[in-house]
Amino acid sequence: MKQLIAPTLIVDERRARANIGRMTERALGSGVLLRPHFKTHQSAGVGEWFRDEGVRAITVSSLEMGAYFADHGWDDITAAFPLNPGAIDVASHLARRITLSVAVDSVETAEAVSRRATAPFGVFVEIDYGAGRTGVHASAVSTIEAIVAALAGGLAPFRGLLLYSGDTYRTTSRSEIISIFRRDVAELRGLKEALGDPASEAVLSIGDTPSCSIVEDLGGVDEIRPGNFVFYDLMQERLGACRFDDIAVVLACPVVGVYPERGEFAVHGGAVHLAADHLTYEEGERGYGDVVELTADGWGERVPGARVVRVSQEHGIVACPADLLERIRPGDVVGVVPVHSCHTANAMGVVFDLEGRRYPQKPKNVLAGDGAARYLRGDVSWSTPFDEG
Amino acid sequence: MKQLIAPTLIVDERRARANIGRMTERALGSGVLLRPHFKTHQSAGVGEWFRDEGVRAITVSSLEMGAYFADHGWDDITAAFPLNPGAIDVASHLARRITLSVAVDSVETAEAVSRRATAPFGVFVEIDYGAGRTGVHASAVSTIEAIVAALAGGLAPFRGLLLYSGDTYRTTSRSEIISIFRRDVAELRGLKEALGDPASEAVLSIGDTPSCSIVEDLGGVDEIRPGNFVFYDLMQERLGACRFDDIAVVLACPVVGVYPERGEFAVHGGAVHLAADHLTYEEGERGYGDVVELTADGWGERVPGARVVRVSQEHGIVACPADLLERIRPGDVVGVVPVHSCHTANAMGVVFDLEGRRYPQKPKNVLAGDGAARYLRGDVSWSTPFDEG
Repeated sequence: MKQLIAPTLIVDERRARANIGRMTERALGSGVLLRPHFKTHQSAGVGEWFRDEGVRAITVSSLEMGAYFADHGWDDITAAFPLNPGAIDVASHLARRITLSVAVDSVETAEAVSRRATAPFGVFVEIDYGAGRTGVHASAVSTIEAIVAALAGGLAPFRGLLLYSGDTYRTTSRSEIISIFRRDVAELRGLKEALGDPASEAVLSIGDTPSCSIVEDLGGVDEIRPGNFVFYDLMQERLGACRFDDIAVVLACPVVGVYPERGEFAVHGGAVHLAADHLTYEEGERGYGDVVELTADGWGERVPGARVVRVSQEHGIVACPADLLERIRPGDVVGVVPVHSCHTANAMGVVFDLEGRRYPQKPKNVLAGDGAARYLRGDVSWSTPFDEG
Repeated sequence: MKQLIAPTLIVDERRARANIGRMTERALGSGVLLRPHFKTHQSAGVGEWFRDEGVRAITVSSLEMGAYFADHGWDDITAAFPLNPGAIDVASHLARRITLSVAVDSVETAEAVSRRATAPFGVFVEIDYGAGRTGVHASAVSTIEAIVAALAGGLAPFRGLLLYSGDTYRTTSRSEIISIFRRDVAELRGLKEALGDPASEAVLSIGDTPSCSIVEDLGGVDEIRPGNFVFYDLMQERLGACRFDDIAVVLACPVVGVYPERGEFAVHGGAVHLAADHLTYEEGERGYGDVVELTADGWGERVPGARVVRVSQEHGIVACPADLLERIRPGDVVGVVPVHSCHTANAMGVVFDLEGRRYPQKPKNVLAGDGAARYLRGDVSWSTPFDEG
């Protein structure tokens, strides 16, 4: 790994498998299905680590991602993102090959699905209860009832209620995260009961990494959909969802300049590699990633006081203490622990394990432009570039 | 364009060509070479629009990007990023095919280049004068002299002084941007003079989009390297570097949910599409992009009061006035004008013109992991996926 000349995302497979194993056990112990979100790694190869732990059902964030994983042997996929009515034919196309579920959050989309689906897929109603992103607000019971009614009798039936507890990201209090989870579970159960007969078989689906990592008993719902936990990152560490040693990816970055006069060095590794997520530290300082030294078998502890403090397109600027600065030279390679591993993995598009094996992600934006029409014609290949490894 | 079901970056070719044309004329009028930075579009296809305006020399931000453009017919390329000593063999490999220049900012790297270059390439000394990113600080004249001396007589000779005026991004004052440019030009000229004979042929290279867009007479240096101007974006508009109507790209985003109760709608178009750059507005609100309506021949004016106010991985949340909210429906497609078009284009990896033609970017992170070794063995193809168009 010391020979790298370009930013390279590396994964400690052992840590990632341990993270998957712990979440699998917790789901099993809680009597819920683990339907992990694959948006974090977006990689068929990493997906196999989940399969080895018995995972058979997955979550994705777009039909494009669903199509990619369908091509790589996954046949039970939920696209946990409000379905675009314009994409009903794409969903139908995909539903001919696998067990697909989608999400809707409006009567209008539900009616369009009911009219225009040409293959059977399940439809979750997305519920919003605090995250303020997408979903019908949990208090709008009559809207939820109308959506369920609109789906009745159609080719794409109501399947359940799906909620994303995004507000667990707004607190670092363990007890508050547990409260949010319990509140959301209770809300989903209450909604199911309020909906009565039409929802008697409704699947209750919930999940985000902070709550699923912190709450020990995840019972009360049918399935959980955490994603980030496979890699974790500094944000999850701050939320108390993981320990530093659970974080399974670092961006290996060549050092390209050393500036003792300002207590900084520069790495090749910027916003197009790390992504631009940051944490805020004491005195308002931003951190785009912590620094580790790479070792023969992975990476070491966090280097105290060394942090990426600015990024531009290709540059990362690391503020660091004098003792490290004295040892470091252009051409060295350091590890940067990402703030948000989903975005870093997405930005890189490929991850390497410690033995140097390549795990490419799905190709990006294949359905952009005329891609959907080409997909429906069967003209799109989902192979990843440089897949030959 | 109304049929899109996935986020799609679209470019108004006429605007982009006009932007290129204006910069070409300004360079010509100023007697300087325009060596545009291709990191913004990263696309062989878009590169042809520059060629049509007579551009023959380009700037890139990595050897990987240089290799891509070399494979697409560009033979005079400067990689304006501090060379990683570990990449000297990659630079040499590339230098066998094209006229290559690289940048260094330390004696150590210069000595390594002098020892280990196996093909001729030019070496710029990167100078820092306020940006605080990479480069030898302009005041460290003896270091600059030592770098020039270290290169003397080697296969990779000293070629000139290269400076990035990144601090033009820190002001919205036209006159201050002009002052920064003049200051930096004077600094480079003074340095060249101070270096004396060894630098008598030194090329002075400068440039960033704000100053090159605002300063009318760019004389006093040999070449300018702006990049963003081909597309421009909201950040450049705020800096006074362009008008809104000069911005040549928008991200077309399907609407997936409408939430009148909170004055918002949701689009498919999040941090992995737009990137997470934001501007700060009155009262500290963040904006990740302004909204336009798509038209038969492009897009219209900015919709007053409509702005992307939050992004997550795939979601963009748009705050908007009631009149737009009443008209908008899931399945509609709106345009989001990016805050930082370099990052948006990079995140998307492909752009479509108004007639639907695809312009893929270079494949990402090909030199990551063992990519450099594979490149040196000739095992790496630079074709882009789905290139068949």
